Amino acid sequence: MKVGIIGLGLMGGSLGKTLKKQGAHTVYGYDISDSVMLKAEMVGAIDGVLNEETAREIDMLIVSLYPSALESVLERFLPFLKDKAVVTDFCGIKRETVAVMKNLAKKYGNLVFVGGHPMAGREFSGIERSISTLFEKASMVLVNVNADIFELESVKNFYLSLGFAEVVITSAEYHDKAIAFTSQLCHVVSNAFIKNEIASEHFGYSAGSYKDLTRVARLNPEMWAELMIENADNLNSELLELISNLQKYSLALEKGDKEGLKQLLKEGNDRKLLIDTKQKR
Amino acid sequence: MKVGIIGLGLMGGSLGKTLKKQGAHTVYGYDISDSVMLKAEMVGAIDGVLNEETAREIDMLIVSLYPSALESVLERFLPFLKDKAVVTDFCGIKRETVAVMKNLAKKYGNLVFVGGHPMAGREFSGIERSISTLFEKASMVLVNVNADIFELESVKNFYLSLGFAEVVITSAEYHDKAIAFTSQLCHVVSNAFIKNEIASEHFGYSAGSYKDLTRVARLNPEMWAELMIENADNLNSELLELISNLQKYSLALEKGDKEGLKQLLKEGNDRKLLIDTKQKR
Repeated sequence: MKVGIIGLGLMGGSLGKTLKKQGAHTVYGYDISDSVMLKAEMVGAIDGVLNEETAREIDMLIVSLYPSALESVLERFLPFLKDKAVVTDFCGIKRETVAVMKNLAKKYGNLVFVGGHPMAGREFSGIERSISTLFEKASMVLVNVNADIFELESVKNFYLSLGFAEVVITSAEYHDKAIAFTSQLCHVVSNAFIKNEIASEHFGYSAGSYKDLTRVARLNPEMWAELMIENADNLNSELLELISNLQKYSLALEKGDKEGLKQLLKEGNDRKLLIDTKQKR
Repeated sequence: MKVGIIGLGLMGGSLGKTLKKQGAHTVYGYDISDSVMLKAEMVGAIDGVLNEETAREIDMLIVSLYPSALESVLERFLPFLKDKAVVTDFCGIKRETVAVMKNLAKKYGNLVFVGGHPMAGREFSGIERSISTLFEKASMVLVNVNADIFELESVKNFYLSLGFAEVVITSAEYHDKAIAFTSQLCHVVSNAFIKNEIASEHFGYSAGSYKDLTRVARLNPEMWAELMIENADNLNSELLELISNLQKYSLALEKGDKEGLKQLLKEGNDRKLLIDTKQKR
């Protein structure tokens, strides 16, 4: 298959490396930075540059950029794509980007639009940190725009062939609600956690729980601010729910209420066990 | 060396396995449950039972129990220990347990008391989950009670010989303040996080950040409630600081303030980088 990738950062670069490792694909890449394109070619993530010429050859175009950059870059390349080429974005929010693609689907009815969000990442960014194993065992979330059932099935199989463990098809609304909790809230909590004054002086006092909790404090502020603000309704609702739960622990501590605290901890423990068991089924 | 271990759960059992793996030690163990003692012997964590007879032989006694159980169990075994035997506890809080040991040091001046807290653990409990690698690369925190500088040095070397990467000597007060943040607050946050309503239905939406953040939601409610209530002043202070920081993100989301949110995220990111760099030195 011939694949075009726009945006050769951590995700786009990892996608290119994954495709090239499989050997069966030709990958053309485009990035706003010439040096990133050069690096991507040097590390074997792409075979060549995606331009007006090579765009005509590709079967699939995947855009791995900030949501705000999606529309203009698609308007630039879509006119050159062949009929039935599949267009997917990798943005971390889906209501906004699927709306963009819905509009474009009216104009480019010959193309197949499917929104996407790979549930994978690292606390680093850039082509330098991209790896060919990023998607192994991860989930891929798809939001259909105008694909028929056979086209959607083939997009699903394409992602499974890349090493994703599962492909989940859902609505943009549900995706954004779920992702506010499973990803965005984790980043907010981790990022806030490290701000406690004592964090800078706890040498020798940290075990695995602290390391795990603060891992994603490190993030790309520009990108995450954009993703979070576009999903502010969902994220703030999850954040307020968490704050309200945390306040219950605080109250128990303030009152020295050991039984109450034990009950709160037990509820969380039991819920974690139940959820893990359900997910293993 | 001959070592006695009281409490053969995850920590005590792992200590026994670690000592036995080294081959050079004899380990006697005691647990309130006979079947746990039997299991500990069967899995090779102890050589035999710690009782009035074997207690006379040991060079070191390590108590790995809840803080509230420390005093009575020490009163039971201390009369049999030989002069200059070292007594250490593994409790997760130190003000309370060091106070207990300070009192006992008046009564048993022939013994050497040093409080301890291994910065290691798992989200499981019990002898069945104990492993001989639990302390590898971990920190051991010691709080001196009545040891002289040579005795303290030899206790420090003992723990380094078990595979601990470092031994930190500090005060009970500072330990409890630091641990409130690096361990207890992590457990509260993880335990509260899993309670968000949507947590039970996010199949296919979770990546590494969610898995890391909820790992220690699973805990022993009885033990942690005791540790947390005994350290409620420190823990609640850290928790309130976190809640206050989280509220800043919520406000930025509520106002749709992208620049403000970006600034908050950048501060957390920069702080995480700075702290990681300092810790690597």
